[in-house]
Parts: sequence; C-alpha cells; structure tokens
Amino acid sequence: MNEFDIEEYADPDLDDPILIEGLPGVGHVGKLAAEHLVEEFDGELVARLYSTHFPPQVSVENGRTTLASAAFHAVHIDGEEPTDLLVLTGDHQAGDGPGHYHLTDRLLDIAEEYGCERAFALGGVPTGELIEEYSVLGAATTDALIEELEGLGVEFREDEPAGGIVGVSGLVLGLGERRGLDAACLMGETSGYLVDPKSAQAVLDVLGDLLAFDVGYGSLADRAEEMEEVIAKMQEMEQGPTPSDDDLRYIG
Amino acid sequence: MNEFDIEEYADPDLDDPILIEGLPGVGHVGKLAAEHLVEEFDGELVARLYSTHFPPQVSVENGRTTLASAAFHAVHIDGEEPTDLLVLTGDHQAGDGPGHYHLTDRLLDIAEEYGCERAFALGGVPTGELIEEYSVLGAATTDALIEELEGLGVEFREDEPAGGIVGVSGLVLGLGERRGLDAACLMGETSGYLVDPKSAQAVLDVLGDLLAFDVGYGSLADRAEEMEEVIAKMQEMEQGPTPSDDDLRYIG
Amino acid sequence: MNEFDIEEYADPDLDDPILIEGLPGVGHVGKLAAEHLVEEFDGELVARLYSTHFPPQVSVENGRTTLASAAFHAVHIDGEEPTDLLVLTGDHQAGDGPGHYHLTDRLLDIAEEYGCERAFALGGVPTGELIEEYSVLGAATTDALIEELEGLGVEFREDEPAGGIVGVSGLVLGLGERRGLDAACLMGETSGYLVDPKSAQAVLDVLGDLLAFDVGYGSLADRAEEMEEVIAKMQEMEQGPTPSDDDLRYIG
Amino acid sequence: MNEFDIEEYADPDLDDPILIEGLPGVGHVGKLAAEHLVEEFDGELVARLYSTHFPPQVSVENGRTTLASAAFHAVHIDGEEPTDLLVLTGDHQAGDGPGHYHLTDRLLDIAEEYGCERAFALGGVPTGELIEEYSVLGAATTDALIEELEGLGVEFREDEPAGGIVGVSGLVLGLGERRGLDAACLMGETSGYLVDPKSAQAVLDVLGDLLAFDVGYGSLADRAEEMEEVIAKMQEMEQGPTPSDDDLRYIG
Repeated sequence: MNEFDIEEYADPDLDDPILIEGLPGVGHVGKLAAEHLVEEFDGELVARLYSTHFPPQVSVENGRTTLASAAFHAVHIDGEEPTDLLVLTGDHQAGDGPGHYHLTDRLLDIAEEYGCERAFALGGVPTGELIEEYSVLGAATTDALIEELEGLGVEFREDEPAGGIVGVSGLVLGLGERRGLDAACLMGETSGYLVDPKSAQAVLDVLGDLLAFDVGYGSLADRAEEMEEVIAKMQEMEQGPTPSDDDLRYIG
Repeated sequence: MNEFDIEEYADPDLDDPILIEGLPGVGHVGKLAAEHLVEEFDGELVARLYSTHFPPQVSVENGRTTLASAAFHAVHIDGEEPTDLLVLTGDHQAGDGPGHYHLTDRLLDIAEEYGCERAFALGGVPTGELIEEYSVLGAATTDALIEELEGLGVEFREDEPAGGIVGVSGLVLGLGERRGLDAACLMGETSGYLVDPKSAQAVLDVLGDLLAFDVGYGSLADRAEEMEEVIAKMQEMEQGPTPSDDDLRYIG
Repeated sequence: MNEFDIEEYADPDLDDPILIEGLPGVGHVGKLAAEHLVEEFDGELVARLYSTHFPPQVSVENGRTTLASAAFHAVHIDGEEPTDLLVLTGDHQAGDGPGHYHLTDRLLDIAEEYGCERAFALGGVPTGELIEEYSVLGAATTDALIEELEGLGVEFREDEPAGGIVGVSGLVLGLGERRGLDAACLMGETSGYLVDPKSAQAVLDVLGDLLAFDVGYGSLADRAEEMEEVIAKMQEMEQGPTPSDDDLRYIG
Repeated sequence: MNEFDIEEYADPDLDDPILIEGLPGVGHVGKLAAEHLVEEFDGELVARLYSTHFPPQVSVENGRTTLASAAFHAVHIDGEEPTDLLVLTGDHQAGDGPGHYHLTDRLLDIAEEYGCERAFALGGVPTGELIEEYSVLGAATTDALIEELEGLGVEFREDEPAGGIVGVSGLVLGLGERRGLDAACLMGETSGYLVDPKSAQAVLDVLGDLLAFDVGYGSLADRAEEMEEVIAKMQEMEQGPTPSDDDLRYIG
C-alpha cells in the first residue's frame, strides 16, 4: 500500500469536464448533493483512490467489504447544452492536517488528468437554527466567479463563513487556485443537526442554473433518510460500550 | 530501530497455511480466540514484528520486559484433514491511521512469505446488551466466502457492522483484497463490557466447522479471567493519579 | 503542494532588517502588534509561505478565498534613524510539534535570505486577572539583549513564564540562537480573555524605544475590536451544532 | 534543524560508563534522582540533544532561553571502586509514539558512542495512596540483572507494573535489549500526586548499593521543593484563561 493507490475502472470521454466535490461534512449537504447527481444522471464509476490518509477502515454492505476510498464518477448531462462532470464522492476526509493537503493535492492531480479546469466544492454551512429559506453561501477563487454566482442568487458575505472553509472543500479552492483552477464553494445553509436534503437541493439548484441542467429531486429525500439511518446506527454504535483501553475501540 | 524489525525464531514447514488474526479489540474476543488456538494446538513461535507504530512500551512479566510486538505462531491441526494456521497475536494495534495501514501491509507481507492465501480476522462486535445466544457476524471480500460462511450459520446483515470494521482486522480484509487474498472477518457478538470467552468460543466454533477441526474450551474461561484481571489492573493504574503535566503520564 | 511553497511578490531593498514575528497567541497581542506595524508604516507584502503544517483551510473575505499562509511584509520606518523591519504575520501556527520546528526553521531561512540578524518575537503572557499596568515581560538568547531591554523597562523574572515559551515565538528564539540570530521575545501581560490592544501598545512602546521610532495608536483599538468580532463569530460557529461523526466538523 | 542535532561540550574520559536515564515521569522520581546524582557528584555537561520530537518550546530562566533538549552529564564517583556514569536528564519526553522510538534510539546511539554497555532507567510507579515504606519495583532485560537487583531488595512482581513501562524508560529497556544492552528499570513507589524526594532516595539507595557508592541526600528535599514550585506555577499557568481558539494556547 502506497500513500495513494488508484484503481481505474473506465476511460470516459469527457468534454471540458467540471470537478464536483461532495465529501462528508456539515449536514452531509455536499455528499448528498454529489451522490444525487451521480444517481440521477447515471454516473459511471471511473476510478477509486485509496490512501493511507483515510481512516484504517472497511465499510460493510450485505457482508461485502470495501476499503475506505474516494470515488470519481463521470456524469454526462444532456441539458440545454451538454455538460460533463467529474464527481468526487466518498465516506471520509483525511485523518489529519497534512493528510488533507496531500490527499487534496492527489485528488486535484486526478481531476487535472481528466481535463478539469473548473471545480465546485459542495457543502453545508451550519446556522444552528432551523432553516426556513435555504440560502446558498458562496466563496470562490476569482472575482469573475463571484460575480457569476451572485447573479444566480448565491450570497457572498463580508466575513462568512467566519471560520473559513476547512478540509478537502477548502483545499480544492486553496490548492486549486495555486494550480490555476477556477474554483468555488457552494455552501447550503443547514441547521447542522441532520442530513439535510433541502439544503442539498438548494445547492443543486444553483449548480443547475449555472451549468444549465435540470435535476429531479424525487429521490433526494429518500436518499437523505437512508443516510440519516446509517449515521444514526453508527452513532448508536459509537455511543455503545466504550472500554477504557484505547485499543478496545477497534473491532479487531 | 527501523519502522519494522522482524525477528525470526523458526522456519516452520507450513502447507497452504491460513492466516488467523486476533489482536486486541472489542471484548478482546479476537485476541482470546487466537491465543486459545495457539495454546490448545501447541503453536510454535515463528516470528515477532517490532514496529515504531506500536506504543512506545514494554510489557513486564515477573520482572522481564518485552518490547511491544506482534507474534506469529505456526499451528498444525490434525483434524479430519490436517490444517496449518499462521496465527497473529499481540497486545497492541497501531497508534494512528497511517500506522495501521503500514503495519497491516507489513503483516500481510509476512503472511504472504509464509504462503497464506486465505485470512480470517477474528473479533467482537459490541451489542451494548448482555448476550444470551452468541451469534457470529461476518464480512468478507468475496461472495463465495460469504456463501460458505452463511452455510455455517454466520450472519451477514444489510448494514452491519454499521461503522464498518476498523483497525488491523478491517485492513486485513481491505488491503488483503487488493493483494488477491481471500479474507473474512468473524465477529462474535459481545456486550462489549468484559473479556468474553463465550463470544470467543462462538467464533472458534465457526472456524472449527469451516476448517474441520475440534478445539476444547476447558481452559478458555480461565484464560479470559486472567486477561480480565490484567485489564482491570491496567485500568486501575490508568485511573490512578493523573498529574496535569502531559509528560507525567509516562512511567519514566 | 510541497511541505513549503513560497510565493514572492516583491524584492525589497532592506538595510539590516530586523525580523518581527507576530502570529496568533495569548490575547492575540503579538499578531495585533505586528499587524499594526504593517498598517501604520505602509508595509509592502514581499512573500507568502504556504505549508502543509498549517491547518487545511482557506479564509474567506467578501467571498474571496485565501489559503492558510504566513506573510512577510517589508516595513521602512523613517524614525530618528531609519529602520527596516521584516514583519511576519498570519492567522495560524503549525498543527503539531514537529510541524512547529519545520515551519519555524523555514521561516528563519527566509528571514536570513532577507538579511535579518536580529529577531523580536511579539506575544502575550496570560495573568488570568484584569491588568491595570501593562508590564512587558522579556526573554532573550543573549545577556546583552537582556541588559538592553531591561534598560527600557522590560521585566525579566526568575522563573517566568513558568511554562516557557511555546510555538513559533519560542522557536524563533530557540532555533534562532542555534543559527547565531540574536533574538528576544517581548510578552505583554494580558488577562488572556480578550484581544488586548493595550497590551499590544505596551509591547510596541518597548519596540519603538529600542528601535527609535514612534508609532500612532489611533487605529489600534479599532483593529482589536474587529479582530474580537471575527473571533467571536468563529467561536459562535464552533460552539454551534457538533454532530458526533468526526468528519462532520468539516464544512466540506 | 534536523530530526536530531547534537551539541557536544566536552570529551570526557569515561571508563566503562553506565547510562542512567531520568526524564520526567510519575512523581518526577527519575528526573529528581538523576539530577541529584549530577549535582552531588559535580557532573560535567558533555552533550545536549535537540530534536523535533521534543515539544516546540524554550524554557526561560532569568530571562535566558534554552531550547528543549536532553542533556548528558559525565559523572565520576570515587566510591569503594570508582564508577563512571553517563546521566541523561531533561524536561521532556517525545510528543508521540514513533517520536519516542526515534528519540530513544538516538539517545542509545549516543550512550553507545560513550561506551555504555549497561543502563538503568529511573522512574516512579504510582500507587494512588500515600506511601509509608518506599519500595522499589524493578524490571530488567536479563534474568541475571533481576537476580542481582532482587538481592538488593528490589521487588519483582508477577504482573507489575500492570500497564508495562511507557515512554523513554520503557524503550531504554525494549530497544536496549535488541542492541545487546543490559538494562533495568528502577521504579520507586510514589503516590503520584507530588514530586517525591523520598521515592527518589529509595531509588538512589538501590543504585548506590549496586554500584558501591554513597550519596548524601541533604539537598534532595530542597530540590524536590523547587521542582514542585515550578510545576505548580506551570499548572497555575495552564489552568489560567483558555480561549477556545486552539492557536491561543501559544504564547506567541
């Protein structure tokens, strides 16, 4: 196992693709939105990235295990004008700060290899309150992108998000800019307490307006509900017995 | 001291050996089961792996110190058909995420050198409740293994364990699969509060059925009791005085 | 992204410049003082250092993102005798111990390249009580510097600060000394609870006396207030919803 | 700054020297005992080891800063038969597990360069209760050493210390054994709540019996008291204001 191992499953023909990143985060808004894109537009799995920066973990579904990884799907959208996306999803971020830098750098390498020159990091921003109207907050690496997104109703506020943007999404912008990638982060407001399909819808609405495609939301609420159930089970598990010996937290 | 130092004690003649992993974890089920195999079948110590990924620690028994390590024992079982096992035991997992990857990778290197093409990671899965009937939960890298184990009563559930499998056991499957190793994890249900010999017995029953051997359990409860005592002492120790200076936690 | 990436914006003509370090710390005294110097004397941004040792984060201002970095500004002061400063500011320290060593080492490399042979690390020392008279506590790498600063009213106490000096400021002295750099740390007493402009003023008074320059403090209180507001927002944010899954803390 | 930088101050003529390690730990027993040896027998500072594995910190005494380091002193004892010691002291252990391995390995390299073939790690073992009779608990890498120390009243117990020996002391034995060094750990029982000069005296009594020297204890209580005061101040400091931003804990 190297620091990174990539497994390629397909060699898609992508025309000026746009990187869409949706890893786990506040309200799982970004992950939910990105996975919904893959499902709705029948995305094709093109590659998985394994890394020692992910948690040392396999997920289990119906008994089959999958090593922690990030997945790239190719998504072709036949909207008013055809749009190609390279959608990055997964169940994990990196385990520490330097790991985030190395991981995001490698993810951007891959996106570049597929020809991406623009990137949108999808995420949520916590308000701590129930949301009535789902605003989408923005941040970008260029003034042109800010202007374009402002025209679509994305809000840019003087000092928000106050703590900046942390993790892979933040670095898609921060490292992306240093590579010459035009990148923006679209953050749906969300209470922060639950997997939030309405916030994901607000984010996808902006993306659809920008890239001229329509996406149905019929299955989005169901997807959020399933995700919520899995998270609830994981939390239940985690709040179960916790023996004092550190090693004991491993199912090993 | 390199990242890994291996010390070899014997050069056993192993015929198509199967790797059995039992490091510390929930209820110490895996460790208890693996150590029991070594004891009952007079396993021979063949190698120890030292690593900077283990805690910086020696254990002490009757005054003699042993540096943190993982041990490989060769176990020959004369059952209906002879079976050779390479049993991996120890007192520690790695100290952080990347360490788990590097450590498991090295452990699998060694298992490969001894000719292992199949692996069983033994462990426990916490239920948080007292157990009446000890089910064994499974996870595997191939559908064929799932089918074989299902036939022996191992349960495979849609979303369990919900949090996946973490630590060396998880990576024996996750990294093992990427090397072409057929691997399964057998997880005995356990409350999670105590060293659980009954859960270990349930796991060993499955393994014995699968590999066609019988193992006596006479000494298993005693072994669990001893392990419980040591853990209790360690906890007592750890819950003793804790001066505020970080350095003070070292017995140094 | 390498461990360090430097971006240079200007090639200033500096005459025997003095390194002034003011990264975040107790009461943000050092950061406030250093940023005030840059503002009051129209400092010129000469370089930014990016590093995997900084948090994986972009800050956002009016929607534009900036990758975590440390900034060097050239400051020319036409006092009784002209003085050149190389002022180091930023929003972050390193994420762990070895990172602090590597980061400070690289920062001192850069300071050396610009010709710095002396350094002052600015900071605060917490008293836990409201301050009436703002003393400045000192520490230095040479007896000559201690004597010089004592003459200006800086206090050197037998065992203070009791915990030593931690982080970049401490290493500017510790690593600086090993490179032959004359270095001192000026620590303004501060309650530790708030961004403290009066403590920053006390530190700058000493520095102005030493280097023979005058600095106006008109805008210092405003700057402290702004900083306070940003920090308050960040804390509010951080004290918002905190889902139990570790990954969720990422706005991602 | 490399991972390790060594600064040598003297080239002592040591005859078959014995390494004595006394870094911070439970009750500061080991550190107190080792520093007492250096003071009582006029030890000569021969080398300091700096390392990125130490905390990023300078200590301050009367305004002069010292970078975190470990110190080696040569100690000549003219007892019944002359004994040479190489005494290792310092204010810190390493910051993480792998750091402990690398640090101890380098410390043992240095000890070997000075010709040490035996080592005694001094420390305390917490009982959590006030001690009336100060027993010394032992652990060693060879049966011969155990026997020798048992003859001097050192106690070797079946399962103690239950948690093993952690940190540099543990690795002086664990890594030392792998290098062919004969090593023992002498652990004075101590409540664990205070710097404990009586426990240090018990440890030194054993060492003096073993190596045939006498050491006066007149100043030991004073030394413990001073150490206690410094630690109390550090704790006071640490329990002072703790702003929520992580960076703020740095005096920077």
